[in-house]
Amino acid sequence: MQSLPDSANRLIEEFSRLPGIGRKTAQRLTFHLLKTEKETVYRLSDVLRDVKMKVHECSVCGGITEEDPCVICSSPKRNKNLLCIVEEAPDIYAFERTNSFNGYYHVLGGALSPLDGIGPDELNLSNLLARIQTGMEIVVATNPSVEGETTALFLAKYLAEKDITVTRLARGLPVGGNLEYTDEATLIRAMEGRTSL
Amino acid sequence: MQSLPDSANRLIEEFSRLPGIGRKTAQRLTFHLLKTEKETVYRLSDVLRDVKMKVHECSVCGGITEEDPCVICSSPKRNKNLLCIVEEAPDIYAFERTNSFNGYYHVLGGALSPLDGIGPDELNLSNLLARIQTGMEIVVATNPSVEGETTALFLAKYLAEKDITVTRLARGLPVGGNLEYTDEATLIRAMEGRTSL
Repeated sequence: MQSLPDSANRLIEEFSRLPGIGRKTAQRLTFHLLKTEKETVYRLSDVLRDVKMKVHECSVCGGITEEDPCVICSSPKRNKNLLCIVEEAPDIYAFERTNSFNGYYHVLGGALSPLDGIGPDELNLSNLLARIQTGMEIVVATNPSVEGETTALFLAKYLAEKDITVTRLARGLPVGGNLEYTDEATLIRAMEGRTSL
Repeated sequence: MQSLPDSANRLIEEFSRLPGIGRKTAQRLTFHLLKTEKETVYRLSDVLRDVKMKVHECSVCGGITEEDPCVICSSPKRNKNLLCIVEEAPDIYAFERTNSFNGYYHVLGGALSPLDGIGPDELNLSNLLARIQTGMEIVVATNPSVEGETTALFLAKYLAEKDITVTRLARGLPVGGNLEYTDEATLIRAMEGRTSL
């Protein structure tokens, strides 16, 4: 912006690059930080640098971690016969927040998407094979999107010859949802997957 | 969050402190930056530090600047007889974006608000008196809120004995607005302030 200090303009520019942050929000954040005390802004600056210096991929599961292997992979308390395959690292923490899954994870690093040029070679599969042991249950937890479903079907075939159980997440009504506003595809899955009461 | 790297948790924490950014957005931003290349994140980190090191208040108008006085106050091309009083520094840039005001600015640093303990002593007034010259027009551009209106009335009295013109921003329908959805107070002002066509 004209007549705004140069560094403030650059901060607006950098904030605007972040997902979900438009020009207006970037301006608001910048003006907020201009009024904020130095220490708070320096702390944000430092932790941004920190996160890029310390955090890397876990060599076992492909999740994010400061140590290698990550806290989940190095935990002896989890069920070694349960492995949950997810598309991206944040998906791990979606399950971890539920405190209800005690197996291990494996991050594919994406989903199959021929249009975007993402084939099996782009996914973290060789590592996956090395982790599979006889008698394991593999939970395929890809997203309920076209790419996620494609990836799930691919994995089912890919893992078919191994002596393991391959399962997938249930499809149905989301908790707190409303029948009236539920889309047809979800209703069909909910009806197909009905369970005894 | 449990099992998330420590620095990532701290970044989520720092992002959550920003206005309009909740826990979910902070997580999304953090995961985004974890995937972003190092250079981009370092650049954001650096510019945050920069902005706090370089930017300070202009000693003349109270706006934000890297040099002192700021580019606006040191410009010889502006109308020396026109001074616009605003509450906060960002308000300056709201007018500057319009490219239609060519006077100078003065930042009060707030608006009168007895409940919050903000009286005339808390506003940047002594500086203002020093800037006032005979024959000037002062445009009071405080917000159209209770505090802003109170401040405008206070300024009108405060400046009454000077040999200057004190004006205020027009009240009326916002451009692009809709009569049907306009609040009563605005409609009253629009009717009162009607102009010949």
